[in-house]
Order: sequence, then C-alpha cells, then structure tokens
Amino acid sequence: MTLHSESALLTDFYELTMLQAYFAQQMNDTAVFEFFVRRLPERRNFLMAAGLEQIVSYLTDLHFTEDDITWLRESGRFSAPFLESLRDFRFTGDVDAMPEGTILFQDEPILRISAPMREAQFVESRVMNMLQLETMIASKAVRCVMVANGKRLVDFGLRRAHGAEAGLLSARASYVAGFDATATTLAGALFRIPVSGTMAHSYVQAHDSETEAFAAFARAFPDNATLLIDTYDTEAAALQVTRLAQWLQEEEGIRIKAVRLDSGDLGTLAYRVREILDAEDCRAIEIFASGNLDEYAVQTLVEGDAPIDGFGIGTRMNTSADAPFLDCAYKLVEYAGQACRKRSLGKVNWPGRKQVFRHYDAHGLMQGDLLALPDEDVGGEALLRPVMRGGTLLQALPTLADIRSHAREQLARLPPSLYSLEPAPKFPLEVSLGLQALTREVDERQRHLADSDRQRWGAEAG
Amino acid sequence: MTLHSESALLTDFYELTMLQAYFAQQMNDTAVFEFFVRRLPERRNFLMAAGLEQIVSYLTDLHFTEDDITWLRESGRFSAPFLESLRDFRFTGDVDAMPEGTILFQDEPILRISAPMREAQFVESRVMNMLQLETMIASKAVRCVMVANGKRLVDFGLRRAHGAEAGLLSARASYVAGFDATATTLAGALFRIPVSGTMAHSYVQAHDSETEAFAAFARAFPDNATLLIDTYDTEAAALQVTRLAQWLQEEEGIRIKAVRLDSGDLGTLAYRVREILDAEDCRAIEIFASGNLDEYAVQTLVEGDAPIDGFGIGTRMNTSADAPFLDCAYKLVEYAGQACRKRSLGKVNWPGRKQVFRHYDAHGLMQGDLLALPDEDVGGEALLRPVMRGGTLLQALPTLADIRSHAREQLARLPPSLYSLEPAPKFPLEVSLGLQALTREVDERQRHLADSDRQRWGAEAG
Repeated sequence: MTLHSESALLTDFYELTMLQAYFAQQMNDTAVFEFFVRRLPERRNFLMAAGLEQIVSYLTDLHFTEDDITWLRESGRFSAPFLESLRDFRFTGDVDAMPEGTILFQDEPILRISAPMREAQFVESRVMNMLQLETMIASKAVRCVMVANGKRLVDFGLRRAHGAEAGLLSARASYVAGFDATATTLAGALFRIPVSGTMAHSYVQAHDSETEAFAAFARAFPDNATLLIDTYDTEAAALQVTRLAQWLQEEEGIRIKAVRLDSGDLGTLAYRVREILDAEDCRAIEIFASGNLDEYAVQTLVEGDAPIDGFGIGTRMNTSADAPFLDCAYKLVEYAGQACRKRSLGKVNWPGRKQVFRHYDAHGLMQGDLLALPDEDVGGEALLRPVMRGGTLLQALPTLADIRSHAREQLARLPPSLYSLEPAPKFPLEVSLGLQALTREVDERQRHLADSDRQRWGAEAG
Repeated sequence: MTLHSESALLTDFYELTMLQAYFAQQMNDTAVFEFFVRRLPERRNFLMAAGLEQIVSYLTDLHFTEDDITWLRESGRFSAPFLESLRDFRFTGDVDAMPEGTILFQDEPILRISAPMREAQFVESRVMNMLQLETMIASKAVRCVMVANGKRLVDFGLRRAHGAEAGLLSARASYVAGFDATATTLAGALFRIPVSGTMAHSYVQAHDSETEAFAAFARAFPDNATLLIDTYDTEAAALQVTRLAQWLQEEEGIRIKAVRLDSGDLGTLAYRVREILDAEDCRAIEIFASGNLDEYAVQTLVEGDAPIDGFGIGTRMNTSADAPFLDCAYKLVEYAGQACRKRSLGKVNWPGRKQVFRHYDAHGLMQGDLLALPDEDVGGEALLRPVMRGGTLLQALPTLADIRSHAREQLARLPPSLYSLEPAPKFPLEVSLGLQALTREVDERQRHLADSDRQRWGAEAG
C-alpha cells in the first residue's frame, strides 16, 4: 500500500466541505492566514523554524487527480459543479515565511499565506501537519546541539518516529538544527544528509564468538567499522577489541574506527572503556554512545567530561517526547481586505497581516521582538521574507548547508539566558501601536456586526 | 517531493552495513526475531495490537529499485557483488502475529519473523516504525473508547500528527480501537473509514454575519450540516441557530444536524447550549465537542452527564501525547536453530521462539498469560497466529470491520481492574517451565562461548 503523502486528499474533510460552501456562494476573495505557536512548551525557551521547503513543494504540486475526484463524487457529499471546479484547483497565492533555521517565539507568525480563500483555506491541514512537525523537531534537536559542545550528533530515531514521514522529516529537521548525520538511509538519498550506521546486537548474537563478529564486520568496512560492545559484557568486549584491533592492523591493515555503548551508565562505562583502550594503545578508537539519550543526558555526560566522541540520539528527539506537539494554529487574519480574528475563550489571536521585527543589542544578541503591521515603520530586522508570489517561487530556496549556517548564526545571537536547558524568562515580545489600534478597530467592527446579527436572529437572547 | 513511504531505503543504514557483512561471510541461516514491548507506559494498563496489515504489505512489496542500488553504489560503502545481490532481495520468510485488535501486555511478542538472516534483519527498522505507531495509537484511542459510553468518537488529529503517515495510520489505528470516523480524507479513501467534517472558525470569520455563514453552510449540506458556534459568543450563536433552524426548515426544508463547541468549559457550555436549543424546540440538533480532548476530559464530561453527543479527538490521541513512544524492541531470539538473547543492562529479553497462551476465568474474562515455547503443552489460547509462510500470505487478512469486532470482544473480556484509566495492578504474566529451562541453557551456552572468546582475545582482562 502506498500512502500518497503528496495526495490532495491528505487533508481534513472539513476543508472540502468548506470549499463546497464557498464555491456555492462564489466566495473567493483574498484570504490571509498566519501560522503561529500560541504558547511555547514548558521546556522550550525558543523554537526553530523548519519545514518551509516541504510546504513550498506541497503548494507547488497541489492538484486533484481523476481518482481523487472520483472518490469525492462517490462519497455523495459534493455537487457536480464543485467537483468539476477541483480539476483546475491550484495554489496561486503568496507565501511569506521565516527562513528555516530562524529562532522564534510564541505568537510570532512563521508563515503567512495570502491567496484566494479556497486555496488559502484548503492547504491548512497539510501545512500545519508538516510545519508543526519539522519546527517541533528542530526545536528539540537544537537543544541537543546547544549542550553537545561540538561532539558528533547522529539521528538514530526512525524506528520510533511516528511513521515514514516523521522519520524522514525528523532526520531533516535535526540536520537543520545542527546534527551531523542520520541513520535513516532514505533521508540521505532524499536530502543528501550524511548517513551513518553501525551494527545491532543481533549481529553479535548471531555469531558464536563476539570477537569474530567484530572481525567480520571490520573486514566488511576496513576503514570505518564501529563495533557495538555492550551485548554481553562491555568491559570484556572492550579488551577483546584492543587485541583484535592490533591483530587486524598487523595482519590485514584494517583499522577499527570506534566502539559503541548502548546501555548501562554511559558515563562510567565510557570512562572504563577509554581506560582499557588507552592502556592497550588504542587511543585512536573513538567511543560512540546511544540508548535513551536526550539533551539532558547529553548535557550530563558532556559536563561530566565523559570520554564520548559522539552521540546517537533517537526516540526522545524524533518524537519530541517531552513536548510531542506544539500549540500551533493557522488562523484567518484578513478576508477581502478586512482584518479579523476569533475571540474563542483562550484562543484569541492578533488580527491582520503581521510582521515580526527583531531588535539586537550592541553585541548583536537578540534583544526583543516587535509584532507589528508589515508596513509599520518600527525598525529592526523583518523576519518574514517573501517566498512565493502568484503561486511561483521567487527564487531558489536555500540549500540545507545554507540553512544550517543560518541556524548556527541564530544560535550565536541568542542571549545567554535562552541558550540553556533551564527555563528562562520569556523573551520580550511587544505589540506595536499600529497593531493595537487595528485590534481595537477589528473588535469594534466585529462587535457591531455581531449586534446586528443578534438583532436579526437572536433578539430574545436578552 | 514524494516521500516514498514504500522505499526499501526507508531503513536504518546499519541494516545495510550488517547485510553487507553477512553477505561477505555468506551468513544467511534462519533467524527468528520477535517484536515486543519491554515496559508499558505509566498510564497504560494494556496495549492493543495494530498495524499488521501494513507490515504484511511492506514485506510483500519489499524490493530495491535500480535507483536505490545506484544511490547505494554512489555512497561508496558497498561492494559490487553485495549490491548485485540486492536486485533479487525479497522477503521469503514466515510471520506469526497477534491479530490486530488483540489486547496484550509487556514482554509478549506481538509479531515473530522467521526468515533467512538478511531478510529478517533488514526489515527491523520499518517493521518497528509502523508497528509501534499503530499499536501505540490504538492503545491510546481505546482508552477514549472505554470512557465514551458509546458516544460518537471522531479522529480530528491530522494537523498535529507527526507527518503524513502518522495522520493516516493514526486514523486507521483509532478506528481499529473503536472510533467511529476520521476527519482525514485520505484515510477514508485508503482504508474506507467513514469521514466526517464540519467547518473552521475561519469560515465564520470570513462572513460579516455569523448566522449567514451558518445559513450558507446549511444550504451546501442540507441534511447534515454541523455548525461551529464558538467563534465569538457561544450562547448567542446557539440562540441564533435556533432561529435559523426554524426559518431554514420552514422556508427551504433544510435541517441543521448539530452544533460544535471547540473551546471554553465544554461541560458547562454544552449544558447551556442544550437548554437554549431545547427551549426553542430544537431537540433534534445534536451537540458535538472538540478542543484539547483526551480520554480524561471525555471521562469527566461523560461522568458529569454533559449533554454532548459526540467528541472530536485530535492531537493528544494522534500523538499519544502522554506516552509518545513505546519501549519496544525487535530482538533476535534464535539463529541457525540456536536460541539466544542479549544481556545488556536493563534490556534483557527471553530467548527462543515464544508463544503467548492466554487463560480466561469462568466468566470468559482474561485471567492471566503464560509466555511459553510454541509447542509447549500449557493450555490456554495461543495469541500468535500464522500469517505468512515462505513470503506468502496464508489467507486474506481480516477486514477492518472484523478487526473492530475483535477489538470490541477483547475489551469485553478485560477484567474490570484493567478496564479503567486508573493505574491497575499488573496483569499476571508467567513464564513456563520450558522457557525457563531454555533460558538457563542459553545463558550457560553463551557464558561458555564468551569464556572461550575471552580466553582467546582478552585473557589478561582478569
């Protein structure tokens, strides 16, 4: 079964029911939607934007196939003229977005889509589905990067990521955030991320002799074998590796690159294994650690000076286990030139098209953000940049290498209080006078309209 | 960009490095791997198996394309003869598994794969990736089913699911567990799950009059419109709906099916809205609730007799937010006829091919499970059933309707202590005498082999 991640039907059914209603009313004026995060998860001082490339790809390729339309017809819920209209349905709108790798905070739009209502509405589900995932994972992965002190970080999480796309896009998002490689082969093929792979316990178990398993593996990868040494007794295996390494070097010119620890107290074991390797003149053999790691575990190991050269980080990063979703929304902020917002309890958002202006201190560190109208003259760096106009990409998107540089620069400009796993005071976000005025105006207009509506339809409500 | 959820390269790179090593050694005897969960998450009294259909599909279609092989060649890590061998690489092994919908506990194999080593090893990453996801989601969703008291449950979670496949497979897994429908359109098309969709706040906001938005939507779906009434003022909107409903009924013969609440105190609001609807003779209009729901919120609402007819449950179910991964493993338990296990700290598992035998009390309720050798004569119901032999499906897999019946029957046989959101005492799992004896034998054999290995390679370890 193919899961059609590119299908137009990969959307909430309500997008289609709304589209049919809009079609029947011939409503299709320009609508502006913004994607933002309402509240940062408890353990995140900031987020890192990721996923724009996938969004652009989705918007560019969006169309209904004959099969899609047939299926919708057979559902019996849609009119023939509406179904006919889907044949030419394409995304023809504008996109503005923060470049991938940009650091952002709550209430700040990451992406703004401005398009005929039916298009801008329809793309909601899939845009959120991808943008939340990659932003969430980049925001988790960058915390590992912050504490790894330059040590090698490899994404190990395909098996417990939530399905195929989660595995692939978390490999990409963690690479955006500064990881060095991924174990997910297809992510290497699709995104040109360096791939890395060692061996499983099963490989050792399938051999009668652990050492012969190591020897066979080293022969298959004579320059870069990493041997997993915790299947039975880690320290005994480390000693065996030293003997084997000398023998293989002398007899066959084969070099063992590293050993991997995957269980137990990694700090203590790494220390013991380093001692054993060094005592036997195997100083060049590196130690790689994995198993239940997250940014806190990496921080403890790095701060404790554990002699570990690299970390394989899986499950907890690829599922963003301590914050497995973002409280994010894709909200209509303007329709047919009128700014708007909803006022549902606990879900109020700022109306109108907005821009985020960032201010820096004398050292170039981020000082505060201002949420303002796009054309308001408030100074600072505008974080949302034009990406698509009229359904077409304005210029080639940055390469992953460029995105990684941008992410690194962003990290370097974080104020020290935020560059930490400890919860920090909220980064200052102010709301411009222009936006405040617009908000009052929108609320007043909406109150007025609601009053008329109530007078007509609900007069006796009291 | 197409994400190729069916690509053979959707695997951990180490599967391929191990394969090359096995190939070089010409090691390809029969290997038996079992997938199981080491520990239940804190808030799960049991799990529900799901995902077998996707596993069978993956195993049946598994092959390397010319492009895959080209990419692997260009990675520079694989030998030409090994790459050549991938051209004919297919899954030719046996699969035994618990039927989807089966209730299970920790340490119990859900799936057993027995195949030539290279095949059985290679499929690890993707088998885990899918089986963990669907089992985790079914196990979360069934908790909502347990407390919903028969009220309608709809999967609303595509937007915050982790990517495309997570959205699709969580729709499927929640349907397996007893949900009634999904909002994810493509899950309807692929799996024939009933789809359901209403409207978004943006739809209301795009109209100057909330009531006219409702009227237009009702006209587009004259028999089954659900109107979202919390965009501005829920109670005022409810009253407007009563007026509109009477008017539409009289003038145009249109019936409004339901209203939806998506914010605020859902219990109190539902009560107020029910009063307003009933007072205006709109008793037939149902109330549907959504917004941040999980099994605890549903339980509170249902136990408080909130007049809610159905629930839309998204994010927290589709991400299994309180347990976003399972501590699961796919472990080699036998190679070339020899049972084995690893002994890594905290990760010990039972060796050899196993079967789970379930015992029931006089009322037909589950009483206890026994982990035993497959051919041991211990009575009880054998939970793992033959699925594939020699790479071929033995018989058509059950339909989703059959799987749902099985899941319902399983729920009906749960002892009362487990049929609860409260943590329950562990379900009894015993280990048979045969398995205990095998374990001792395996440990002794492995200790003996390790001693020989150490004598040869690490004698001075002391």
